[in-house]
Amino acid sequence: MKIGPLLIKLRMICGDRFAMGPGKAQLLEALDREGSISGAARSLDMSYRRAWLLVDETNRCFTEPLVETLAGGGRERGARLTPAGHKAIAAFRALEEASAVLAESEASRTLAAMIRAEPLAAEERAKDE
Amino acid sequence: MKIGPLLIKLRMICGDRFAMGPGKAQLLEALDREGSISGAARSLDMSYRRAWLLVDETNRCFTEPLVETLAGGGRERGARLTPAGHKAIAAFRALEEASAVLAESEASRTLAAMIRAEPLAAEERAKDE
Repeated sequence: MKIGPLLIKLRMICGDRFAMGPGKAQLLEALDREGSISGAARSLDMSYRRAWLLVDETNRCFTEPLVETLAGGGRERGARLTPAGHKAIAAFRALEEASAVLAESEASRTLAAMIRAEPLAAEERAKDE
Repeated sequence: MKIGPLLIKLRMICGDRFAMGPGKAQLLEALDREGSISGAARSLDMSYRRAWLLVDETNRCFTEPLVETLAGGGRERGARLTPAGHKAIAAFRALEEASAVLAESEASRTLAAMIRAEPLAAEERAKDE
């Protein structure tokens, strides 16, 4: 998430994998909205295969699966968040919200005050010197 | 930075560029230690060209340059942090330190408690079901 010039990326790791992060949270929210992995993939302009792999990876990282697929129907069969899925998404979004306090820290304000709105072009700088 | 299962990446943006982040902070610290861009590049196993471009980009993002190069000597000529450079690095590292509180938040603890130490292997999961 971006707060002024500060960009904060939070991820939860599980071994050498990412259990949760901005991309997976967005995918699970889309799945909750669309009611299937294929629908979530379409709404995010992502391939079905990629969406399936991300959901599977997340499920394997948590002690309880976050997503359950309904029987039958192939790719178009329904999928939904489990109670653990709703809890994990809510906690991740709360963690992101909590991180906003960093933008108010003295360190962040010090840096922000030193940074231009846009980088000086390489040409202009060469001219200045 | 990594605190248990929580991975936090902080960056300061400037237009469509990164003014400061973990990689640039590490490069500027190496430059401060080694006394030249070429020495910093060598110590980080990075090409001179890439190190030079990163230093230049950072300089163009701040209102005052963070690095100044000394006259003469081509690639081996010295470079050092300016007072603004020391201030920016200290503020960035302080911001990273401040972010550690997020690992103590209820949201982070909730997520951490739901995540396995290692992902379940795809094969094992298939067998479980």
